[in-house]
Amino acid sequence: MNNITMCVPTKILFGKGQLQNLPEPMAAYGKKVLFVYGGGSIKRTGLYDQVTAMLQNNGFTFWELPGVQPNPKVDLVRKGIAMCREHGIEVVLAVGGGSCFDCGKAIAAGVNYDGDVWDFAVGKANPGSVKVLPVVVVTTIAATGSEMDTSAVISNPETNEKLGFSTADMRPRIAVLDPENLFTLPRNQTAAGVTDIISHVFEYYFNNDPTAYYQNRHCEAMLKTAFHYGHIAYDEPENYNARANLLLTSVWALTGVIGKGFDIMWSSHMIEHEVSAYYDITHGVGLAVITIPWLRYCAQFESTMPKFREYAVNVWGVDPEGKTDKQLAEIGIEKTAEYLKYMDMPSRFSQIEGVEITDEHFGEMADHIMNTFGAAMNNCFVPLNRANIVEILNNCL
Amino acid sequence: MNNITMCVPTKILFGKGQLQNLPEPMAAYGKKVLFVYGGGSIKRTGLYDQVTAMLQNNGFTFWELPGVQPNPKVDLVRKGIAMCREHGIEVVLAVGGGSCFDCGKAIAAGVNYDGDVWDFAVGKANPGSVKVLPVVVVTTIAATGSEMDTSAVISNPETNEKLGFSTADMRPRIAVLDPENLFTLPRNQTAAGVTDIISHVFEYYFNNDPTAYYQNRHCEAMLKTAFHYGHIAYDEPENYNARANLLLTSVWALTGVIGKGFDIMWSSHMIEHEVSAYYDITHGVGLAVITIPWLRYCAQFESTMPKFREYAVNVWGVDPEGKTDKQLAEIGIEKTAEYLKYMDMPSRFSQIEGVEITDEHFGEMADHIMNTFGAAMNNCFVPLNRANIVEILNNCL
Repeated sequence: MNNITMCVPTKILFGKGQLQNLPEPMAAYGKKVLFVYGGGSIKRTGLYDQVTAMLQNNGFTFWELPGVQPNPKVDLVRKGIAMCREHGIEVVLAVGGGSCFDCGKAIAAGVNYDGDVWDFAVGKANPGSVKVLPVVVVTTIAATGSEMDTSAVISNPETNEKLGFSTADMRPRIAVLDPENLFTLPRNQTAAGVTDIISHVFEYYFNNDPTAYYQNRHCEAMLKTAFHYGHIAYDEPENYNARANLLLTSVWALTGVIGKGFDIMWSSHMIEHEVSAYYDITHGVGLAVITIPWLRYCAQFESTMPKFREYAVNVWGVDPEGKTDKQLAEIGIEKTAEYLKYMDMPSRFSQIEGVEITDEHFGEMADHIMNTFGAAMNNCFVPLNRANIVEILNNCL
Repeated sequence: MNNITMCVPTKILFGKGQLQNLPEPMAAYGKKVLFVYGGGSIKRTGLYDQVTAMLQNNGFTFWELPGVQPNPKVDLVRKGIAMCREHGIEVVLAVGGGSCFDCGKAIAAGVNYDGDVWDFAVGKANPGSVKVLPVVVVTTIAATGSEMDTSAVISNPETNEKLGFSTADMRPRIAVLDPENLFTLPRNQTAAGVTDIISHVFEYYFNNDPTAYYQNRHCEAMLKTAFHYGHIAYDEPENYNARANLLLTSVWALTGVIGKGFDIMWSSHMIEHEVSAYYDITHGVGLAVITIPWLRYCAQFESTMPKFREYAVNVWGVDPEGKTDKQLAEIGIEKTAEYLKYMDMPSRFSQIEGVEITDEHFGEMADHIMNTFGAAMNNCFVPLNRANIVEILNNCL
């Protein structure tokens, strides 16, 4: 096992009504707040009113930055940074899902940086070199785990790029995780969130290091939980325990507890980020399409068989008796595909509504991955080069 | 699932040679250090020299408090508190196992309290009401998980009491977890440590709340890891991956990540604390004896069958086909007993060397548990009263 250096100081306020416990710890960071959120959904559900009442009743002064979209755009981040500078904002409060949090984190990182925040994304500047404003988050979806991780992924439509950057202080200081705030989530978003959780855990679980035994078994615990409760939340939006278990799993998945101690470069996320940079699709929807062809691509090799066997047996409870590893791999992948299909997730790009994804940009996408990450792509579960990436993308058509 | 409020801000420095990365983050808390350790073992292994060199070479001034024994005594804690006051100590550095850490944490809590530190143990005062000195730990055994939790358990031989207390700031700020520091651990201590890990996870895993699904599956991941690598570490003391996986499992077990979100009162630990308060035996050794009679006691009831079934099937991989729940429970318990026996752990009090434990004090022990914890004992996996506790203790003879 490799060395691990980590620290997860996020204060977790998990459960019913935890918003009421936010003012005291948040006030420790300051009273001038940038309130970042998305569209009208938190207004429809009443969460907007709860948050603004909480702020008003506890002596916070706040400025609103609505309009965060899925795949949050760098322009809105720039606008938020300008607001923070203008009003002397002390705390960024992001309410919503991963896109809101990523937008809020990027704003927090950019406020005290002299250049343009996009410099962080393209590696021209390091967010660790500036003072990052404290970030506080209130969750409305179980998906990214951005609530307790150090990264932000933002998009630049001008360059068709969707890129991430991170530093320890971008990790939210406080995360309000109330499963009841997920009750009103539309079914398709619940499904996309579940897909994102599963995909995150896959990115770690499909590794080549059996010595990271605890991490591997913990990944299986997370996958079992996501698979067990994902369909329940899809079918019963107000099932508290389903929402609660998915939320806990999603946030712990990205803290490092399952992701450190072994070498792994993410695969399907890298590919999906390209597709959603070009076509602005929902992240979890893109992942739903890419995951299965990626798994099938990886399952061609003798070296990956032990992992796929483990997956089928330990996660899906498949009886290995009388089955070859190849058969077990296929059963595990097929069960995953069926699982996603039950939640009406697309299995082909052509099934994604509102866009027409063709092979037109696949070469550019693969080039962009290779140019951005280069040799790191050799640390994927199965090393990926330009040709492999194009092949996987073609298998998504 | 119940609400969860938690925060685990311990900086984890896990892996080979991580002691060299300690000076920088430790210096942030101060340069005047109380160096707490046990007997001669860290001198024999060379760790004492490494720690003192690290302190000297990085401008720390330190005072030594050696002599921490298993079941650390309140007298030594008092001595440490006096030293901290006399020398204006800023950081408590504890090097060793759980006893050292507990001693260090208790000292850190007592320094700024006007009364006697034992007041915290008996509930006369709350350690949360005083400023606790920062605690830093360097581990030599995978066992308690005291490295990342908020509690200290100390013993008072005058009153035959072994009691715990806790507050958020008693959680170590930095934990150096180098598996190589465990290579020289004697086999019997390795076995006692593995038993302690398993027992801690049992205290959470054997609960009556299937809605804490993620926590339950995570417990299974920890149990599988402990069972897989425990025997390997016992047989091959210098097996790095065995030490590494056990260490990671032990520290995460006590952070709250598997222990919050449902109601549970610990059982076998409460009983063991009594026995080791009277007889000063090694904690893990006492647990090895008590665990199996406790499990057998719990497995008498129809209501606990689903949990025991889960344990046998999910942790031990027992094929449930054609077996009753009762049979599955017995198989799971028997496998646990065999597992402990392989590591030469005693299965009866009479097999513990150096002491003669009779039923003489069992009544007092049970009374003390009931007087101290009262109605909370109804929240045990199977509620325990005075008679039940005496019965379990009698079954350990």
